Amino acid sequence: MEMSGEFILSADLGGTNTKVALVKSEKNIIARRIFSTEKYKGKKSLINEITATINDLLKSNNIKKDKIKAVGIGVAGPVDFKKGLIYQLVNVEGWHNVYLKRILSRKLKLKVYMDNDVNLVTLGEYKYGAGRGAKNIICITLGTGVGGGIILDGNLYRGSGWTAGEVGHIPINVNGPRCNCGGKACLERYVGNYYIVEEAKKLARKRPNSKILKFADGKPSKITPKVISEAAHLGDKLAIKIWKETGVYIGVALTGLVNVFNPERIVIGGGVSLAGDVLFDSIRETVARRAMKKPAQKV
Amino acid sequence: MEMSGEFILSADLGGTNTKVALVKSEKNIIARRIFSTEKYKGKKSLINEITATINDLLKSNNIKKDKIKAVGIGVAGPVDFKKGLIYQLVNVEGWHNVYLKRILSRKLKLKVYMDNDVNLVTLGEYKYGAGRGAKNIICITLGTGVGGGIILDGNLYRGSGWTAGEVGHIPINVNGPRCNCGGKACLERYVGNYYIVEEAKKLARKRPNSKILKFADGKPSKITPKVISEAAHLGDKLAIKIWKETGVYIGVALTGLVNVFNPERIVIGGGVSLAGDVLFDSIRETVARRAMKKPAQKV
Repeated sequence: MEMSGEFILSADLGGTNTKVALVKSEKNIIARRIFSTEKYKGKKSLINEITATINDLLKSNNIKKDKIKAVGIGVAGPVDFKKGLIYQLVNVEGWHNVYLKRILSRKLKLKVYMDNDVNLVTLGEYKYGAGRGAKNIICITLGTGVGGGIILDGNLYRGSGWTAGEVGHIPINVNGPRCNCGGKACLERYVGNYYIVEEAKKLARKRPNSKILKFADGKPSKITPKVISEAAHLGDKLAIKIWKETGVYIGVALTGLVNVFNPERIVIGGGVSLAGDVLFDSIRETVARRAMKKPAQKV
Repeated sequence: MEMSGEFILSADLGGTNTKVALVKSEKNIIARRIFSTEKYKGKKSLINEITATINDLLKSNNIKKDKIKAVGIGVAGPVDFKKGLIYQLVNVEGWHNVYLKRILSRKLKLKVYMDNDVNLVTLGEYKYGAGRGAKNIICITLGTGVGGGIILDGNLYRGSGWTAGEVGHIPINVNGPRCNCGGKACLERYVGNYYIVEEAKKLARKRPNSKILKFADGKPSKITPKVISEAAHLGDKLAIKIWKETGVYIGVALTGLVNVFNPERIVIGGGVSLAGDVLFDSIRETVARRAMKKPAQKV
């Protein structure tokens, strides 16, 4: 690898893992590192690990800091991207109101940019991915949490307090279970990984012949979204039912967004989306059946 | 009245009534006319009545056409404001894909502007009303239908097919009654005038002592939102219950919008809003209890 051209360091600070990559000319990943975010209690040790990983990545690829254009960090939580302030790192203790951008640029002596991870995914899909060519996009990421980003008239819409896009916290029922956010019957409360798995455990116990349990070595505690997807791909009725229901819940929330935003495209990503057609067909059918004709045709 | 200065003709083409006003220097209404939209079957007779009313209004106020700057028309239905095309006049038969702007400007020989009525209300509230000073606003109008308009970053957001803002058609339940729009469990299906009145009729029959029936001369068929409001203002428990429930439904839909849009202000207008504090307190409490903290504090 020649030293010509400029490099970017990209980091994904997630609730479960932190990933760091060395990238050349915007798109080519040269090297990666991954470590468990959960292992590092308190912000100091985690920040030290990020710094060490970045320095090691540069050293082992024989790249000097003056070849680095900038460090871009995506954060799994609400941030003020202008101030470089993390309001909260969801699922990680001790992260409240941390000026990570300032801390890292001082430690690394590099230019640092920081934003909410789903905002970055949304911008990525808009510029290079499934959202290319559209002006109004809604992006949803399905995982432990359910996140969202919105491109309106070609710009990322951030809202009045930078917290716009919380698609996972649209209520889909007047009455329903309490959500971690403090609300009730939020979409995430039905289709976040944890809740899909809980539902699967409950149903699988009643139907011990389901492939879900088989793929989980007979242990409900080993059920994951991946296991449910594998069972569904092999035609397991219970698994298909779970993904269909999940699709209806997502479709109901999207119906409201389609009627209110009138978007051109909705981009769905994240681990749960590996369920494939059985999930996506159910989402599509629900939106087609429930959204208003004009905006439903447009999307 | 002097002939100096310029005048505007303003028309509100509603599902029930059509209102025409002669306005001086943006704000002073000089004269008004109102007639029943419902009386005119088919588009031709209604367009003729609009034209005749405008001509009569000018004549009786002794104003020549060269003093008229423009005619502005608000339409109760989805429109393409650039083409001046009405896709549909909701609740009026025979109005599909009518190029009203072109027809009226030819007949009147005046410059005509046309837009969706709620978009115009939203712009009005943003410039002169309750939305002044805010950059991100959601406006809801409660009436026969439940409409909405959105100002984002200081501009009216119209969506990809000009139909954005249909706040009334956010589903608030996964399962629920069918809505006129073709969807299911939409907000409008719970808080549109007709449905509030139906609910009141049903409940009032079971509680004949309620003030609701008293104010309706003992006849369920005479119950209106106004009657329910009057009963609520006098402390009638059933009426208060109806408005509180209505507030919860509206609050649930707004919770989703607050989490997704992160707006500075929500403006609520329309006939039903005459119910006053009992309704607004219930909306406010629901949003405060269910929306995420950051955006809930902002709004």
